[in-house]
Parts: sequence; C-alpha cells; structure tokens
Amino acid sequence: MSVFIAVDLGGTRMRAAAFGGESLTPILVERISSQGSDTPPQERLAQLILRVCPPGEQIAAVGVAAPGPIDPQKGIILTAPNIPGLVNFPLAESLQQQIGAPVYLENDANLAAMGEWKAGAGQGHNHLIYLTVSTGIGGGIISNGNILHGVHGFATEMGHTTVLPDGPLCGCGHRGHLEALSSGPAIARWVNDEIAHGVNSSLAQTSEISAKTVADAALQGDALALAAYNRAGHYLGQAVADFLHIFNPSIVIFGGGVSRSGELLLAPMRASLQEHILSPQYIENLTITTAALGDDAGMIGALLLARQTTQI
Amino acid sequence: MSVFIAVDLGGTRMRAAAFGGESLTPILVERISSQGSDTPPQERLAQLILRVCPPGEQIAAVGVAAPGPIDPQKGIILTAPNIPGLVNFPLAESLQQQIGAPVYLENDANLAAMGEWKAGAGQGHNHLIYLTVSTGIGGGIISNGNILHGVHGFATEMGHTTVLPDGPLCGCGHRGHLEALSSGPAIARWVNDEIAHGVNSSLAQTSEISAKTVADAALQGDALALAAYNRAGHYLGQAVADFLHIFNPSIVIFGGGVSRSGELLLAPMRASLQEHILSPQYIENLTITTAALGDDAGMIGALLLARQTTQI
Repeated sequence: MSVFIAVDLGGTRMRAAAFGGESLTPILVERISSQGSDTPPQERLAQLILRVCPPGEQIAAVGVAAPGPIDPQKGIILTAPNIPGLVNFPLAESLQQQIGAPVYLENDANLAAMGEWKAGAGQGHNHLIYLTVSTGIGGGIISNGNILHGVHGFATEMGHTTVLPDGPLCGCGHRGHLEALSSGPAIARWVNDEIAHGVNSSLAQTSEISAKTVADAALQGDALALAAYNRAGHYLGQAVADFLHIFNPSIVIFGGGVSRSGELLLAPMRASLQEHILSPQYIENLTITTAALGDDAGMIGALLLARQTTQI
Repeated sequence: MSVFIAVDLGGTRMRAAAFGGESLTPILVERISSQGSDTPPQERLAQLILRVCPPGEQIAAVGVAAPGPIDPQKGIILTAPNIPGLVNFPLAESLQQQIGAPVYLENDANLAAMGEWKAGAGQGHNHLIYLTVSTGIGGGIISNGNILHGVHGFATEMGHTTVLPDGPLCGCGHRGHLEALSSGPAIARWVNDEIAHGVNSSLAQTSEISAKTVADAALQGDALALAAYNRAGHYLGQAVADFLHIFNPSIVIFGGGVSRSGELLLAPMRASLQEHILSPQYIENLTITTAALGDDAGMIGALLLARQTTQI
C-alpha cells in the first residue's frame, strides 16, 4: 500500500501527516518548530516527511500548504512570511529529489478553502469564499469549481483591501485594510487604545490583551469588549458585501482563531452585510458559516491536492 | 452561407449587426430606440434581428449583450435597467422561438471583457479585468480564461464596492461606492457642488456640466476641472489596487465614455495605484490600457459568444 503525506508549513511550526486509502484521519502526525535550526528548512521538511511515512509504505505523493504567495504550476515558494531561506525557492522540486515522490505545493488559505469545499462546510458549493480571521486575514476563493490564483499566484489577498481610507495602519504598511480593522491584533489594539484614552473596561487590568481575552470579557458583558467585536464585525461585513458583489458566491466560510468567537463577530458582521448589500439576491440563498475542519483545513486541503493530482 | 447576429441591448437603443464567416466587420447594422413603443421589447428585438439578416442567408446563431445581471445558462434576463418588461424574462428562449436559431445571452460588461480579450486590447491575457467608466461603473472579469459569473450571474459589480464609507450617495442608494466617486455623473456632481460652494472655475457659466465638459475645461487648465479628474482617478486607483490584490490579473482595460479622457483620468489613477498597491509584484508586468474596440466591445463579444457556442 502507499500513503499520501500532507504538510502544513507554518511560520511557527511545520506539521506532516500520513494518510492511507481514502481516509481523512491521519495514520501518523509529527510537528517540528519552523525556527531555531541551522539546517535549511527544505532538508528538515524532507526528514519530517520521511519520518511520518510508516515503515514499509511507499509515498504516493505529498501535498504542501505554504503561507504566502506561491507559484502552484512550478511549485515555487515566492515569499514565505517568517520562514527565512524560502524566497523564490523551488520547494516542490527540492523535496521531490530528496524523497523520490511527486510533491505539490499550494497556498495554505487556498488549500483551507479546498479542504472546506471538498470535505468540510462547503461541500457542493462551486462558488465559495473562505476567509481566515486570525493574526492576519487571508482568503481562498473557489470560483466556478477552481481555485483563484491570478496570473502569478498573488490573488485573493482579501485582508489587504482598503475598507477605511486613512484608517489604522496595517502590518503591510498601508492604512485602513480589512486586516487592520478586523483581525485579532486589530481588535486587541483598538481595546488597548480605548483604555489608554480612559475608557472603562474590565480589561484595564489585563496585562496582555488579545482577541481571546477581549472575547472572554465580551461574553461577561464588558461594554468595551463588545464594542470591539461590533466594530471588527462591522468592517468585516462591509468587506464581505464587496466580496459578494464581486464574486456572488453561494457560501462564505469563516476560519481562523478569531472566527471561533462565533456570533460575537458574526452577528455584527451579518448586520453590516445587510446594511451594505446591493440587493437581497446576493444573500437570499447564501450560507454563512464557520469552518468545519478548523486548524486542519489546510492540511486536509494539502492531502486532497496530493490525491487529486496523483493516479496510483 | 449563414450569418451570425450580434445584438447590443442598451437602455437607450438596441443595435443588431450581421457578420459573415470569420469577419469582425458587420455586413449590416441597424438601430432602434429601446423606449417609446407599445410592442413588447422581445418582439421588436426579433424583428430587428430578422431585418439585419441579409436576404437568402440563414442565421447560424445570435449573441445578445444585455445590461444588468442575467442567467447565462438559462438565457434569462434577471433585471434590465431602463428596459421595462424584461424582468426575470427568458429572452433567449423567446427570441429562439421567433427567429428559429439558437440565441445566447450574456451581460454586456462581461461580453465587452470577452470582446477585448479575444479581439481587442486583451488578447493573450487569461487573467483580465475590464472596467467600464461611464454613467455607471461596471466590470467584466476573465479569470483563468473564463468569464466570472458567480452562482446566480450577479458577480463583478465592481462599481458597487465601498471605496469611501459615508462618502457620496450612489445611484443604488448606498454611500461611497466607486460609482459614486469616479463615474461621469460623480465627476460632474462634484464640480457642481464645488462651484455651488463658491470655488472659482471656467465651468461656473456652463449650464449643463458633464464629465465631458469637465474634461474639456481640464484640458484648458481649469484648476477645479483638473481636481475633479484627480479625485475620480484617485478613488479609481484605490479600488483597482483592491481588484489587483483580489484577482492578480496581467491586464486592466478601461472602457466607457469617461475613460476616453485618457491620461486625465489614468494618470491620477496610476499614481493612486502605486500608493495603494501591496507589493510591486502586482504591477511589475501589468498592462493598463484603454479599450481597443470602444463602443463595439460588447457587440463583438456577443458575436464571439454566438460563434464559440455554435458549430456550423
């Protein structure tokens, strides 16, 4: 028998998992840190892949979910945020030579979209928007049954659309991007700023304010914390209205840590979407939901990529 | 021999043209007004089509460019701005029965995108954004060699994305849409408002200010007129940056009357695009140009639609 290996290449950790047959449950999973080693990441990754392959099994194919823009045709990582040494790097070719099996590479948000599409909340939807709301805001789009890449693989940077000109500074250096208004750090920063300006909150004594501690305070009825999620949801809804006008999908799936706050974020998002939508036809039969595969969406997407591109 | 008929269904006039063989030059063109008749539009349209078919020729197929959202699979006009009687109307089927030849229906901005893609400024570009800047702002997207429709045909309403929250009122009733900032009427309205607020301009004596009279005044050095195009181009560039982040195309084509002002609009658009773009990779090999087919882009697109879906 042969196995498929799915790899999730994060800025903090790299994960590899082996899967047999048609199963979505891994036989073996291993994690290593992405940082703090002198060995080049492509070598550590190859070792990790070989380590999760059960003894006596052959690797049929490997799917790799990589952060940042990639060239899926050529299997090249264009830039990898937080993983030094992987800029314009032909990762698929390098791994292929080291492990002797075909390797397919794809952007992690795209693969999360594919995972949710084929095996998660988006099954049966060929026009799908997946948005991950986390440290950043990323996206993956299934348009008429195809992942949207654009000409060089830089498409679907949904977090870097301007929502409020002259708004807060984004990590990318521009102002008013969706990511600067509705991501986890954006929520925490706004609460910090409001407290610094003298607004009363149960969070005033909290040493490290995060989207999670703000969510906890909001659930306890803290007015500032609730306002923070209302604000983030409002701008998210405005952006989602634009995305619906542009793509007219049948489903929008929210993944990422901040989306785990559920209705705290999604209720104001829905209200804002209603307010901003061009006509009811865009939302009449639209499903809005959270990711079914959670943190594994990218990994499952990588597995499906490896399976679909390979004939055993 | 048989001919293909292309129809351009506008709110002001309906145009039909007959084309033979592989030519893009019509054998015969006829126009009628879209308004002011008691005969239902589908009947007048069928008569128009039969009238442009040269005597003794057979109609191989008809392509129809329709304004507003349509269902291309079913050939249904969902809503047709300014053409009463064509709401949720099965136009393709109706025409097909009247003229006895297959009829294909598509949104006019999508067909203009297709016309430019196959026979105009966008040849060879499989990732293409076409924006028409006119009375409204519309769009057509070629994504990986396919027209983007969305699930119900409502996609690519690029003019109705929010560019400036709480900005000027759009014709659709929402605020701050691209169309409310950079369309022809938006340019004229802003100049009117500034003059009403006492700003000096050569246009102060003009009875009917339009995007065209503003362009003429700008070319004569009128400061307010120049500022009006700079403002429209600025917001257009901000929106185009978002569209590049979302689609990563290799070409952006501007059509529509306002784009005929050329660099008056495109120079500030480019400056704003530079300012708003996430990374140079989006614009390094990007072509930005005006439509090569002008007002005929939708018509040529309709012809190509009829030809490509028909085997003679």
